[in-house]
Amino acid sequence: LGIGDDAAVLDWGRAGDCVVTVDLLTDGVDFELERVDPRRVGRKAIAVNLSDLAAMASQPVAAVVALALPRGCEPGRLPGEATSNSGPGCLPGEARAGSGLQLAEAIYEGMLPVAEEFGFPIAGGDTNTWEGKLVICITAIGRTSRRGPLCRSGARPGMRILVTGQFGGSILGHHFDFQPRVREALLLHERYDVAAAVDVSDGLSADLDKLATESGCGALLDLQRIPIAPAAAELARLRGDGVSPLEHALADGEDFELILAAGPDEASRILADAPLDIPITDIGQFVSEPGIWCYDEGERVAMKPRGFEH
Amino acid sequence: LGIGDDAAVLDWGRAGDCVVTVDLLTDGVDFELERVDPRRVGRKAIAVNLSDLAAMASQPVAAVVALALPRGCEPGRLPGEATSNSGPGCLPGEARAGSGLQLAEAIYEGMLPVAEEFGFPIAGGDTNTWEGKLVICITAIGRTSRRGPLCRSGARPGMRILVTGQFGGSILGHHFDFQPRVREALLLHERYDVAAAVDVSDGLSADLDKLATESGCGALLDLQRIPIAPAAAELARLRGDGVSPLEHALADGEDFELILAAGPDEASRILADAPLDIPITDIGQFVSEPGIWCYDEGERVAMKPRGFEH
Repeated sequence: LGIGDDAAVLDWGRAGDCVVTVDLLTDGVDFELERVDPRRVGRKAIAVNLSDLAAMASQPVAAVVALALPRGCEPGRLPGEATSNSGPGCLPGEARAGSGLQLAEAIYEGMLPVAEEFGFPIAGGDTNTWEGKLVICITAIGRTSRRGPLCRSGARPGMRILVTGQFGGSILGHHFDFQPRVREALLLHERYDVAAAVDVSDGLSADLDKLATESGCGALLDLQRIPIAPAAAELARLRGDGVSPLEHALADGEDFELILAAGPDEASRILADAPLDIPITDIGQFVSEPGIWCYDEGERVAMKPRGFEH
Repeated sequence: LGIGDDAAVLDWGRAGDCVVTVDLLTDGVDFELERVDPRRVGRKAIAVNLSDLAAMASQPVAAVVALALPRGCEPGRLPGEATSNSGPGCLPGEARAGSGLQLAEAIYEGMLPVAEEFGFPIAGGDTNTWEGKLVICITAIGRTSRRGPLCRSGARPGMRILVTGQFGGSILGHHFDFQPRVREALLLHERYDVAAAVDVSDGLSADLDKLATESGCGALLDLQRIPIAPAAAELARLRGDGVSPLEHALADGEDFELILAAGPDEASRILADAPLDIPITDIGQFVSEPGIWCYDEGERVAMKPRGFEH
């Protein structure tokens, strides 16, 4: 497929395409080991990959896990246990996370229930120790259905913009505890003519912009319809910096919901059927002019897509 | 296949099994960015994965690359260019390696010729920056031939131990410049009855021990026949610590040659045909007693497998 999608698709003959996605998470950027149970870190690391497979409407088949574990902190305790003296030169976070082996075990404890829930094995890995902070790199392998992969490039002007779930404020916890939309994507792709999809990792407007760009079109948002998560309002209240809940919903990263494109009739059918356990919302339409647009007092204005830049 | 082999094998129906291997390399353990051209680091990172695919007799199909790039060093220069002032707080090695983008480009410059040589694409990736040192995590996907994967578990007592190439002293440069034995493994697996294989990453005796253990047997080495690399002798001379070239050949890691198991007649046929451009050497036989053995003044004695412990 070339670059631009959530995962690579490898032609594997008649047995369904092989879809490959990789995500690397680092302590200090994607999580702070000093502040979070490493089991939640492990859960997030695998769930992020599943979200990429979901965006491609692929069934997870296996994952391989590579770890770079911080060295030399002992005896260490897992979070929730009594704290102990840490080894020389250990940062508090490393000590709290325990020795390398304990840390690896805790990470796997977080990953395995997700793998079990979605029915695939952790098929192998590469475990290393080093002087640096924790790095987790997971590669997930998926398989497309007979309908092939969902891609970012299939949206066309006039199609509706559908989203699953709600947006904003994921930093308050949802970015660890989100549910990757694998089953939802597979069901929608199987039963309906979904034309394109992307998962929201960098932010609703930023990822919508990517999908629209890959499709050679733009997107016109109906801002009144954006489903705003309660956490977005909570974050706006906590921060008190004038950034509105709607702005959080548009710009915050790591919601890990899906943005989908479907023709108007098909979108109406999906909304009428409501086939998922979670809400699906129509938030606007794809348009021929590139960029992200919205109505402001009845006038169409360009929005600057904002989100987390890697 | 469960754990114990060089890569995971995923059943992909009739289109050939999907073989997945991951290796994570870190600055300070697998290379020292301060001392080496990042192109060589990139080359090594991909070649290490290909060596794993070779051990499984699999054709490379694609690779995905995840990077954690050190942040905040600018303007930077690539090695070979005039040195410049580095940004505040930059280590010399980071400055030398240039900014994150330049570093990523140099790493890809090292990887792409290898991918081209072996005929597969870099199908995707995940590029991150962080406060830590460089981490490269590559996952390679391969496809088995109609003969299926080569595994570590197929050796039986009485089979011969064959090796490609020479061993020892790779730290002097070979660990960057080695040629992964993909073509050699595919040719041998296609033309001959090879029963088991492993690539030598941790050291000849350590990886032979792994293969023998997975096969439920031991290995008896003919120490006179071990092919010792000139670099092993050079390293022994440079170090002057009494460690012999033979000991380097047995214990040094990262030769990335193949150890193969074949029945005595088949081994003779391989040696007589000499089908590769590189030497193949018979260095002993598999035996029923677990462990690694050798003859010392006519008596069979146990050897302690030594090598790099991850």
